[in-house]
Amino acid sequence: MSVLSRREVLTGAAIMAVVSSAPSLAAAPKAGKQAPGFYRYLVGDLELTTVNDGVSRMPITDSFVLNASKDRVNAALDALFMERDFYAGPYNPLLINTGKKLVLIDTGTGPAGLAASKGLNGLLLQNLAAAGVDRNDIDAVVLTHYHGDHINGLLGPDGAPAFPNAEVLAPAPEHNFWTDEGELSRTKNPRVVAGFENVRKVLTPDIRKRLRTYEWDKEVLPGITAVATPGHTPGHTSLIAASGKDTIYIQGDVTHAPFLFARHPEWHFFLDIDPVAAEATRRKVYDMLAADRMRVQGFHYPFPAQGHVEKRGNGYVEHIVGWNPRL
Amino acid sequence: MSVLSRREVLTGAAIMAVVSSAPSLAAAPKAGKQAPGFYRYLVGDLELTTVNDGVSRMPITDSFVLNASKDRVNAALDALFMERDFYAGPYNPLLINTGKKLVLIDTGTGPAGLAASKGLNGLLLQNLAAAGVDRNDIDAVVLTHYHGDHINGLLGPDGAPAFPNAEVLAPAPEHNFWTDEGELSRTKNPRVVAGFENVRKVLTPDIRKRLRTYEWDKEVLPGITAVATPGHTPGHTSLIAASGKDTIYIQGDVTHAPFLFARHPEWHFFLDIDPVAAEATRRKVYDMLAADRMRVQGFHYPFPAQGHVEKRGNGYVEHIVGWNPRL
Repeated sequence: MSVLSRREVLTGAAIMAVVSSAPSLAAAPKAGKQAPGFYRYLVGDLELTTVNDGVSRMPITDSFVLNASKDRVNAALDALFMERDFYAGPYNPLLINTGKKLVLIDTGTGPAGLAASKGLNGLLLQNLAAAGVDRNDIDAVVLTHYHGDHINGLLGPDGAPAFPNAEVLAPAPEHNFWTDEGELSRTKNPRVVAGFENVRKVLTPDIRKRLRTYEWDKEVLPGITAVATPGHTPGHTSLIAASGKDTIYIQGDVTHAPFLFARHPEWHFFLDIDPVAAEATRRKVYDMLAADRMRVQGFHYPFPAQGHVEKRGNGYVEHIVGWNPRL
Repeated sequence: MSVLSRREVLTGAAIMAVVSSAPSLAAAPKAGKQAPGFYRYLVGDLELTTVNDGVSRMPITDSFVLNASKDRVNAALDALFMERDFYAGPYNPLLINTGKKLVLIDTGTGPAGLAASKGLNGLLLQNLAAAGVDRNDIDAVVLTHYHGDHINGLLGPDGAPAFPNAEVLAPAPEHNFWTDEGELSRTKNPRVVAGFENVRKVLTPDIRKRLRTYEWDKEVLPGITAVATPGHTPGHTSLIAASGKDTIYIQGDVTHAPFLFARHPEWHFFLDIDPVAAEATRRKVYDMLAADRMRVQGFHYPFPAQGHVEKRGNGYVEHIVGWNPRL
């Protein structure tokens, strides 16, 4: 048996051309673009669709993780064969068709994100359309928290509500925090101040007219229950969708991308507003997910963003489910 | 913070309904089907498209792995949160647009597989169409070996060649084995005898007319080199596609699904015709992939079927690449 090494292939060693006798067709044009990013699965009678909004590309600095150096983060990326120096954080809103209502959970970075990222994110509307979903048919948008990558997609390209017939449901403690001038005046973190400014821009009068707040430990909509998971933001919320005996834990940002932050629950991500509370929440939720072998959907999980969590050592390892060609 | 356990959610404890005041739209119909399974990426100037053919559903018995019990295989599936007792082996043909030629590597289970599996596999033609590829535009089909899930898709629904303008390129040692009546007469393994019968059916006069054999350690087509990886079948072949400084190792069935057989290279899969040679090939190739950090595409890798290999302990762990929304 011969196994060519990468070097041998690149230098062309051991390669001799074979003359092909096939008739030559006209060259087929390259497609030049990715497949639409959506994926369906069932939870009991609920039909869920992960609708990819794209991915971030954040430079990794020594303050990307407050208590781990750039070198340590790069070492973790190296071990996963991922590009160094940049954080490719996936964005995955989730659509739930309950049979009665079409419910969208979180909205991606929106048209502004699409423009700023040159098409790397802000893809929700085009991927929804590819999935055959008319945004006018969406009955409710449920938000897990008020960070821009979750709320900015509430607005369409024209600045009007992207989902004109949808009620917008926001966690009450989250809404109260980000709309409280007193909280803003006490905030010293410039990133959080910028967050307040963004919330003010996104919660236009048209959005506020549609907005209702929901409470922790109650059903947000039939079959979808809110659970308190604060730390990433003060009112950060996860959702549990249940149908029959089947459930899924929709974690929002309990971890950012699990390949970094589930494996290192002790890492304090710079976007966690209260990193100590965020770590406590993360460990509590992930201990439960692992012990109950519960399915989890993560906004920043790699597409299709659904999987299970294994407890390993002091951290957790995510297992993303394989592509199922049938529902 | 409150974290609802799975049991609490299922029994409805701590849940109180909130009355929604949203206007009710007509219920949106459920889609009832999966997204098309294709995914694009670049290797230098080559545009590659993984085109999913679906997945198998084989019962796991004590002879599924010759040297590991059903219990051990089930334990491995449990650890990965996968269904017990069944092997969901993904099928992923690969399309390469070289800019001059459209080359398909392996063909899936074909229309017969589609019918027999009730739509669980045999999906290549519909996923190719979803990817915007006209099967008449394919210039060449390169086969890694002659197992049914790689060759049966050579034939279309009408029994005529599915890729009527394509040359069919087969590894010479593989072709010679499966078309040698002497080899057949010496074969005692009934599964291999059935393989001979299948090859006879699939290599119709129309297919044979288009068929050319290719040799190990030579270019099959410009930029695509054949390497000997026997064991799974006597003439089993892998391919290395290279462009500029970039390469990908297209492994065929050096391992079947990596979540079982890369992690357990010592396991002798019942479909490996010479399991000892297959294991030796597997270790040699995977040691090289891990040492060179070379990208690998696996026919039985989870869609989108591209990743890297880490050496860990006595085995290997695959890292499937994350969905990239841009090429």
